[in-house]
Amino acid sequence: MADLSVSDEIAAFVAERDWAQFHTPENLAKSIAIEAGELLECFQWDTDAEVDQVREELADVLTYCLLLAERIGADPNQIIRDKLAVTGEKYPVDRARGRSAKYDAL
Amino acid sequence: MADLSVSDEIAAFVAERDWAQFHTPENLAKSIAIEAGELLECFQWDTDAEVDQVREELADVLTYCLLLAERIGADPNQIIRDKLAVTGEKYPVDRARGRSAKYDAL
Amino acid sequence: MADLSVSDEIAAFVAERDWAQFHTPENLAKSIAIEAGELLECFQWDTDAEVDQVREELADVLTYCLLLAERIGADPNQIIRDKLAVTGEKYPVDRARGRSAKYDAL
Amino acid sequence: MADLSVSDEIAAFVAERDWAQFHTPENLAKSIAIEAGELLECFQWDTDAEVDQVREELADVLTYCLLLAERIGADPNQIIRDKLAVTGEKYPVDRARGRSAKYDAL
Repeated sequence: MADLSVSDEIAAFVAERDWAQFHTPENLAKSIAIEAGELLECFQWDTDAEVDQVREELADVLTYCLLLAERIGADPNQIIRDKLAVTGEKYPVDRARGRSAKYDAL
Repeated sequence: MADLSVSDEIAAFVAERDWAQFHTPENLAKSIAIEAGELLECFQWDTDAEVDQVREELADVLTYCLLLAERIGADPNQIIRDKLAVTGEKYPVDRARGRSAKYDAL
Repeated sequence: MADLSVSDEIAAFVAERDWAQFHTPENLAKSIAIEAGELLECFQWDTDAEVDQVREELADVLTYCLLLAERIGADPNQIIRDKLAVTGEKYPVDRARGRSAKYDAL
Repeated sequence: MADLSVSDEIAAFVAERDWAQFHTPENLAKSIAIEAGELLECFQWDTDAEVDQVREELADVLTYCLLLAERIGADPNQIIRDKLAVTGEKYPVDRARGRSAKYDAL
């Protein structure tokens, strides 16, 4: 999988427009949910979606996620890694393998 | 801002559990919206949120975003960069500076 | 289809707990999105969902919707009816019949 | 609070357009989440929102909720009432009064 190295470009984009004042953690969390809804709209009536549309909406979700990570002083790599460890405890390989059940139903 | 380099760890985590079979683009888009709702729940009644909770929920959104990017063959860096260019056209610096209005109201 | 007549019971439930103070329009909009995510979780990996779970989550979305309608002084019947009229203009029967396409693609 | 009596009009609107074929429970759950995101967008950067916009987006959420209730054979009144009973158990008046804390933190 590819890695993200675009964070500085996002920061510059925001700084040029003086938009950081709007980027409270709460507003960013709302923005992530709003953009996630737009991404989901690509799949509203169909499992197939127009791929260019998916790319654009996914980019919006990712952008707000990186802004929120920055805003709360979190390293995206580290929080993902930390959460994988937590999830790994709840879904041990031997019980979770090939199953989509929730951890409390495994 | 920090960059993401954790994608290979996510891929290994999923492979170990044989979960890729569940990760259709549609299911991942649903998962992103679900996790975005959990992130928003940290701010349901308050603008202040418990930061450890925010980190965990944000990590979940990011993880599904990276899985979807991988699944549709998109480079996260590139789609964010491409979308910034589109957004930059809609929100030129001179008109958007310091304003949260939508582009059609600028 | 059945109609809703439970609104007074919701109002009493909230009044007993003195919760109206938390129910700003913004907080209710967040709550609707959060509960919509929980409803969607019933269908995260499968088109079939556990029906009791769906009923509970749908009830939560509906409850917050009725609270928001009340809060902004809107009659739920009337806003639905008004919006159906708007949607009917965008999706005339002769062009929209049997199609899930968005109005600008009809 | 006002009650809903518009369900028959929604049913007629859908029947005229032969749209029931698209209204699987899963698609309706996605639609509720999508519209909830649009409702939230009214409050993205501000606690004040344009009320006409809120009414329209709230109407969309409510419409899909009533369609889902109908689709799974649930009486909206009854599921709301049933869920209030469950929530009442988790949030007893004496402990929950005037507090927005989650039940496991009361």
